[in-house]
Amino acid sequence: MTLSPEQQADIAALRASPKETLRATAPGIEAHLYKATPVLDHGFVRVIDYMGDDAAICQAARVSYGKGTKSVQNDEGLIRYLMRHWHSTPFEMCEIKLHVKLPVFVARQWIRHRTANVNEYSARYSILDREFYIPAPENVAAQSAVNNQGRGEVLEGAEAARVLELLKADANRAYDHYEQMISQEGQQGLARELARMNLPANIYTQWYWKVDLHNLFHFLRLRADSHAQYEIRVYADAICEVVKDWVPAAYRAFEDYRMGAVSLSAQMVDCVRRMVAGEEVTQENSGMSAREWREFEAVVKG
Amino acid sequence: MTLSPEQQADIAALRASPKETLRATAPGIEAHLYKATPVLDHGFVRVIDYMGDDAAICQAARVSYGKGTKSVQNDEGLIRYLMRHWHSTPFEMCEIKLHVKLPVFVARQWIRHRTANVNEYSARYSILDREFYIPAPENVAAQSAVNNQGRGEVLEGAEAARVLELLKADANRAYDHYEQMISQEGQQGLARELARMNLPANIYTQWYWKVDLHNLFHFLRLRADSHAQYEIRVYADAICEVVKDWVPAAYRAFEDYRMGAVSLSAQMVDCVRRMVAGEEVTQENSGMSAREWREFEAVVKG
Amino acid sequence: MTLSPEQQADIAALRASPKETLRATAPGIEAHLYKATPVLDHGFVRVIDYMGDDAAICQAARVSYGKGTKSVQNDEGLIRYLMRHWHSTPFEMCEIKLHVKLPVFVARQWIRHRTANVNEYSARYSILDREFYIPAPENVAAQSAVNNQGRGEVLEGAEAARVLELLKADANRAYDHYEQMISQEGQQGLARELARMNLPANIYTQWYWKVDLHNLFHFLRLRADSHAQYEIRVYADAICEVVKDWVPAAYRAFEDYRMGAVSLSAQMVDCVRRMVAGEEVTQENSGMSAREWREFEAVVKG
Amino acid sequence: MTLSPEQQADIAALRASPKETLRATAPGIEAHLYKATPVLDHGFVRVIDYMGDDAAICQAARVSYGKGTKSVQNDEGLIRYLMRHWHSTPFEMCEIKLHVKLPVFVARQWIRHRTANVNEYSARYSILDREFYIPAPENVAAQSAVNNQGRGEVLEGAEAARVLELLKADANRAYDHYEQMISQEGQQGLARELARMNLPANIYTQWYWKVDLHNLFHFLRLRADSHAQYEIRVYADAICEVVKDWVPAAYRAFEDYRMGAVSLSAQMVDCVRRMVAGEEVTQENSGMSAREWREFEAVVKG
Repeated sequence: MTLSPEQQADIAALRASPKETLRATAPGIEAHLYKATPVLDHGFVRVIDYMGDDAAICQAARVSYGKGTKSVQNDEGLIRYLMRHWHSTPFEMCEIKLHVKLPVFVARQWIRHRTANVNEYSARYSILDREFYIPAPENVAAQSAVNNQGRGEVLEGAEAARVLELLKADANRAYDHYEQMISQEGQQGLARELARMNLPANIYTQWYWKVDLHNLFHFLRLRADSHAQYEIRVYADAICEVVKDWVPAAYRAFEDYRMGAVSLSAQMVDCVRRMVAGEEVTQENSGMSAREWREFEAVVKG
Repeated sequence: MTLSPEQQADIAALRASPKETLRATAPGIEAHLYKATPVLDHGFVRVIDYMGDDAAICQAARVSYGKGTKSVQNDEGLIRYLMRHWHSTPFEMCEIKLHVKLPVFVARQWIRHRTANVNEYSARYSILDREFYIPAPENVAAQSAVNNQGRGEVLEGAEAARVLELLKADANRAYDHYEQMISQEGQQGLARELARMNLPANIYTQWYWKVDLHNLFHFLRLRADSHAQYEIRVYADAICEVVKDWVPAAYRAFEDYRMGAVSLSAQMVDCVRRMVAGEEVTQENSGMSAREWREFEAVVKG
Repeated sequence: MTLSPEQQADIAALRASPKETLRATAPGIEAHLYKATPVLDHGFVRVIDYMGDDAAICQAARVSYGKGTKSVQNDEGLIRYLMRHWHSTPFEMCEIKLHVKLPVFVARQWIRHRTANVNEYSARYSILDREFYIPAPENVAAQSAVNNQGRGEVLEGAEAARVLELLKADANRAYDHYEQMISQEGQQGLARELARMNLPANIYTQWYWKVDLHNLFHFLRLRADSHAQYEIRVYADAICEVVKDWVPAAYRAFEDYRMGAVSLSAQMVDCVRRMVAGEEVTQENSGMSAREWREFEAVVKG
Repeated sequence: MTLSPEQQADIAALRASPKETLRATAPGIEAHLYKATPVLDHGFVRVIDYMGDDAAICQAARVSYGKGTKSVQNDEGLIRYLMRHWHSTPFEMCEIKLHVKLPVFVARQWIRHRTANVNEYSARYSILDREFYIPAPENVAAQSAVNNQGRGEVLEGAEAARVLELLKADANRAYDHYEQMISQEGQQGLARELARMNLPANIYTQWYWKVDLHNLFHFLRLRADSHAQYEIRVYADAICEVVKDWVPAAYRAFEDYRMGAVSLSAQMVDCVRRMVAGEEVTQENSGMSAREWREFEAVVKG
């Protein structure tokens, strides 16, 4: 991703003029404000605004728990308790607003997270730029043989080259024709709301996306996960770096109790108990299907 | 849209075996169940399931209003009162589930309505069909000169022909290359989650969409409106025909108090009063901007 | 409402230490931060945090409309256009967090607005204070004779006095018994989660409530309306004063296009046209019910 | 709970007239329709309507996964896979509508689940009945000594008797005064919207509550849990019995992967691996706090 000189000047100007506020501030995220973290070849994530910090989570929880909370000795302990016991509403008291530039096929996955506010660049109203996601060679991968919904090995040289060639040529041709169709030189010019239908799903769009911390954690758990598609995972990873600096205690709790956590089924809990008690447990005597057993072994064997 | 013989047989089989239920039934919508209403060139809307009817709206309202409601003499009167006074929760007590086949660029507008349940065909998991929306000649229109977000006159012959030629050729070429990339003959085969990025926004997708009647009315008010893009409006129109048969009294109230209604600003109300009292009101003495005045004249002059 | 010296000191301390931020600030609402606006006899509204300002609404809208928006010459014009044409998502880009102390029966109405984040003081966890809403004499009103869901004239002296006596005596007795039941002196002490069930609906609770500006406007339109119950309307009114200072242009648009606006049904629009054209329109030839006609006359006659 | 003869006749009439439908039916839940399952002393849960069944979950999932799903051999296997891997949208394709009568303090917990549709009996509009929740002696429990938010041992005889006496007397006195205040005999009569504030939180209210299966499972996991307050847990338990008969395969998956499941933190997973490998793990070398260690031991020791 390269920012234009105008964009760089805009960011510099926004960062040059701090203002006074009586609100809670989180110094860790102030350092990120307005800057563009590059993602993929033309995408980015920018923090536009935020509300709250670790203390705001505790403040809201203490309204809930009133005079009773004194026993949780400090904020981090309280935050960990809330996360561990699925008390989600205090985390909703923090909010973040991001400006994201991303390929359309990534945007289509992202928008399935409904509890968020979105303003997307309108291709009915405006003309899209000639910017397409073309994967780096190491990300041009084969269909997975074991997972219908994933990718496997990196494609070998000649095949990868053909793929990249096709993606580039088709994207550029589609864009050339988009421009030809909307052009008003010597013709009426097709409506933008129609012409856009010729553009492929790797074209970049952009949006403002605003979400509370609870729903953001839910998004990150699913999209920063190793099973998520690489092209959305890199956005989730970039956001994780921001959240870590914004609400460090909440982020640590999220890592321990969500990202690094594992859900054991009733059968799995039973098997763990038997194993810890010294019993030999096999798939046959576990009560699990072969697939569940594989998932279970991955947990207990690491 | 043409259904395959298998699809037609499926629908016939589903419609051939009525079952007994103690639930409320709405005969008007039973006649629609499973049938595919064609929309655009390859799209459709099918009713898969529904919950409730006009009486269910009143039943819920009467829990709210308890012993007090006897004064509203009949169900239709109550429904009209609820609609007129923005009592939205009784309408949420009806629910509908649709199976919709639609171009991706329409799906992208549609999904912005967040209060609904969606299961979309996954192009990570599965291979999309070679079906693209190519507008009928009468819908190939120029960019509007007055509305940045709309279309104007139908394109003239040669230009329209060029547009249609480009759309068809690009779609087919993109699909040919999609197939080439994922093919595993003599090569590894690109992951489907990557190959799909080459496909343009006029390719068809499909989903199950479930929504309550209040939120459906909100969708229909915006998308069956004359300012909505034609390609989503025809879906909204097709759904209107279903809703009319499902909850006829609620639909009539929706037509009178939503679709056919107009919101007058404080300034507009003031002008109406002055005009009705016989005063000559012009833009100059109206307190409105030129744009608002034009909108106002369209209301009071028709 | 009287704040304790500790609470006053807390507020003073929070307001004494401005910090630097790179975020957008809204000077008008900074003046409100942390202060308690009294509402009813023991309630209050306090602004705890906010995100965004009038400019943030436009910024988000301009991502939506991209290069096309230059024709809307200024921010206020754009905001008014967005409000008038029901473009709600840009308003969702502003967020506010309030600390509210309110009677339980008001909280029960308020919570029906579902698109918001809430942390309420927990009466399972903590002990509620002895604070009850007792209406001022001018708010002790009779049941409305015309509106099942409203109040009519102020009660006359002796009856009002009896009402206030009963409310006070019952509240205090209930609280005495609440304390007796949870007391652990000489007995085990009833669980707080059970004892609270003895407390009447005029006891005060408190919560943190966070909401975006679009949903806040929806709340205010319904709850600052003259048909809303007085005891919630005064909270809405207090919040209106805050919003007016926070996003003045958006608030003016809200007043003109929502609070002061009127929705005319299809039949009403038709009658306005006929009246403006000089025709004599009566209920008989209007196509409206008697009730609708009364509502219509209130609009056009003022 | 006792139903009046009129109510019993209503239910019998509703159950006496099955109708034909082409929709999916679920015989297990048809047997529940309209019947009132008693809960607490005056409450109930009644199924009013439903949409979908186990097959509807799979049908929606198969649109998502299209041609790829053939490998999951049967519906139950697919449902278990979806539940285990947090694919929530297919479960949203089922919907249920309940009529619930419940004490106000239970309703206040319940309503915190925001993703549902609610129509509650209005005490502004109507007069509430003289029905209060008075706990059975075995549920009159002391405050928990270890859990600020829970109850401990059952209260002993004399104390329990005093509690029950106070609850009954206060409820009846509050209701007597409610009636006196709203009475129009010889006085104007206080507005209902004001008089209700005198009524305690154990008075019964009722509502229609409609929710999709995914959100219902979330509600049940939290409210049928042993840490939930008894008075809401009994409602959750009653609903579990309905869901078990409605969508038996989904309910079994819910029991195995949600109700009976355990979430292990990153540290807990590490300890399980070390224990299974034969290592002696103690709190000291576990990386957990004392509280977490106790929670962990409860999992692995049972």
